[in-house]
Amino acid sequence: LEARNYEALRDYLSELHPYEIASLLEEFEEPEQITILSLTPPETAAEALEHLDYDDQYRLLDHSDKAVAKAILAAMGRDAIADLLMAIHPNKAQQIMAMVPEEDLESIKYLMTYPEDSAGGIMSLDYIQAREYWTIEQVIRHFRKVGQKQSIANYIYIVDAIGKLVGVLSLKELLLNDPKSLVSDVMHKNIITVLATADQEEAARIMSQYDLMILPVVNDQGRLVGVITADDIMDVIEEEDTEDIHRLGGSQPLELPYLESSLMTLFSKRIGWLVFLFVVQAVTSNILKYYENVLSSVVTLAFFIPLLADVGGNSGTQASSLIIRALALGEVTVKDIAVILFKELRVSGLIGIVMGFIGYFFAWAISGSATIGMIVACTLIVVLIMSSTIGAILPILGRMCRVDPAVFSAPFITTVVDITALTVYFNIAIRLLNID
Amino acid sequence: LEARNYEALRDYLSELHPYEIASLLEEFEEPEQITILSLTPPETAAEALEHLDYDDQYRLLDHSDKAVAKAILAAMGRDAIADLLMAIHPNKAQQIMAMVPEEDLESIKYLMTYPEDSAGGIMSLDYIQAREYWTIEQVIRHFRKVGQKQSIANYIYIVDAIGKLVGVLSLKELLLNDPKSLVSDVMHKNIITVLATADQEEAARIMSQYDLMILPVVNDQGRLVGVITADDIMDVIEEEDTEDIHRLGGSQPLELPYLESSLMTLFSKRIGWLVFLFVVQAVTSNILKYYENVLSSVVTLAFFIPLLADVGGNSGTQASSLIIRALALGEVTVKDIAVILFKELRVSGLIGIVMGFIGYFFAWAISGSATIGMIVACTLIVVLIMSSTIGAILPILGRMCRVDPAVFSAPFITTVVDITALTVYFNIAIRLLNID
Repeated sequence: LEARNYEALRDYLSELHPYEIASLLEEFEEPEQITILSLTPPETAAEALEHLDYDDQYRLLDHSDKAVAKAILAAMGRDAIADLLMAIHPNKAQQIMAMVPEEDLESIKYLMTYPEDSAGGIMSLDYIQAREYWTIEQVIRHFRKVGQKQSIANYIYIVDAIGKLVGVLSLKELLLNDPKSLVSDVMHKNIITVLATADQEEAARIMSQYDLMILPVVNDQGRLVGVITADDIMDVIEEEDTEDIHRLGGSQPLELPYLESSLMTLFSKRIGWLVFLFVVQAVTSNILKYYENVLSSVVTLAFFIPLLADVGGNSGTQASSLIIRALALGEVTVKDIAVILFKELRVSGLIGIVMGFIGYFFAWAISGSATIGMIVACTLIVVLIMSSTIGAILPILGRMCRVDPAVFSAPFITTVVDITALTVYFNIAIRLLNID
Repeated sequence: LEARNYEALRDYLSELHPYEIASLLEEFEEPEQITILSLTPPETAAEALEHLDYDDQYRLLDHSDKAVAKAILAAMGRDAIADLLMAIHPNKAQQIMAMVPEEDLESIKYLMTYPEDSAGGIMSLDYIQAREYWTIEQVIRHFRKVGQKQSIANYIYIVDAIGKLVGVLSLKELLLNDPKSLVSDVMHKNIITVLATADQEEAARIMSQYDLMILPVVNDQGRLVGVITADDIMDVIEEEDTEDIHRLGGSQPLELPYLESSLMTLFSKRIGWLVFLFVVQAVTSNILKYYENVLSSVVTLAFFIPLLADVGGNSGTQASSLIIRALALGEVTVKDIAVILFKELRVSGLIGIVMGFIGYFFAWAISGSATIGMIVACTLIVVLIMSSTIGAILPILGRMCRVDPAVFSAPFITTVVDITALTVYFNIAIRLLNID
């Protein structure tokens, strides 16, 4: 196929979807990549580039023929260009800016003023406005003039004289309504919007709650400044969930896919938490040292240390992951803390009774002592109740203090629970065995 | 507001978004709910009902005036009715079916043949078909006739004589193209589709990769049978991620939000794993009992048991959560097992050296013995390498055996790692301390 048959290649490429072009680009080296880009329709090439990482976008635009690069940049969404410019070195950004169509520069600079993870940072400027005093016919004529760009969405936003968003019309309604009717009579007036400065998670929550395909973004004066589409929001949801899952596993979130992350990235994202947790967990050694005489007189007690610590860790992890997810989905807020506490106390009480019963017979069988069985059973009940409540409450306290609830990960909860479990265990043992 | 001023209330309700009606319904008791529903436009009421759980949907439809219920059911998406019918008791389903418009019954029964979590189970039937030999003008006329339903999407699907999907046109293209041109000349022919029998996760992956707002669903003959919209897919993504996070925390996924789950549900979703893990972890007690004489001669060894077990658990959890997420996103497949293994060996080797160094000095300080320091350091290195590789490989083996990788949760990994850590620890201790 790469045998210089450019005409056949051009036909083939023009039928492909941008994502397929991107996959194709990833399979080849630079000379072929440049050829493929130059033979792809600029609209498709522009969308294909958005699937690549920023360094590759820059490299391909920089190394392409200047006319090709200019055509691609003209077809690219202004939000995609803004994202690219913010991600690369300022010198390189200058080079790209020099090739961007003059009329797009101002709005790209405007987009760059919003933080990357805000609603303004992910919004697109490819929407169409109309006035409320127009007729449907006028809107259709306007749309025919300005609606050519591929990424333009299926809604027309209606603004008043000062640019304030007052209504919305779908293309379907344009087609179905009488051409003579007034926009203000047929438009929807109750519009759900999001502030440009809001967090992207906020935008995702609104779109998923209201089942929206597109969400208009307004500034604090209520003026329409952009739109967010459902396909952008899917990426946001996946990105945020990935971050939470990485944090829950006790590592800093990776920015790149696992296979593309370098050895040093993986090392540095993981070692920090491991060392921090090691230092905290080292307290357990001090606790055991403190109870050395109890341990030496009844070595059997040591048999159940890992078991008790693990059971506490397990139930704390269960509770914390349920609450962290509920917080992320907005099902639970900090106001529910008392309800959650009460619920966890009852659930873990039930769990404690069942597990205490099992633990009693197990410890009796291993140690041959009913007293040890009793010690293990009592510890299990206390530890299960404590670990569930700690696991459930810590993420909520985190949210209150504006810490990501997901840092209260399995390893973190395990550490906190281990320390309390050991202290409880030895105190119950001292009492029931009459050691001092 | 509830002071019988029905006219004002009707005006107020007609301006609200379905999600807002649903929130309103949740605040009131049944008599008010029935009143609200009867005063809301049926189209909005139908969408509002979809936000409630199935029992409430049934109860409100059953207790509403029959004419109101019929109007709402006529406005409801056929996919939403099918979901409702599958979720409630067959007798109740019969009652609802009796109120569904005759012409919808067959397609609702057809939808019910697909499993709930398949592409067919989440697809909607509200799409519009046209023929490839039509002109744009004909399509617009057809659309004006059949496009009234609110949930109809912004695309027209083009099928051939036997119903095979051959192209797609957006409403935008209807508006922008010359009314005289032929559909087959302007339609897009390279269409991304999904099989109705495919998993809903597959549909989500395709839509998010290709950045699609709508995905046509075909049967195995290539005939168009439905469409999936981005707002449905957002729910799927959130649902699947919630399941993964619950599993990673070591509990069975909850179907209802945390606050709405009953005490017995929370108990039963959590107790199973806790008991299972307890039984496996009980092995640690047997290991310690086996090494009782080593422990009694050097009680100091017990000081580091929880620490070593925790460090292994931490690093295993890190590795497993990174790999589980990468598998869920399709970034990694079972074919990458060798690459991952090699990567984890190197990363964990680095981590092991750093942590071994820290552990050596710490254990020396606590125990006053450089030999104990050495034992702890060596165990740390071995345990860190083992736990990372086990944590990374188990989810992949799970995927190979068609087990959800997310069952290799933090608690599960911790358990496996604890058992190996203790065995390694005592074997190193016996060798370095010359005990036998």
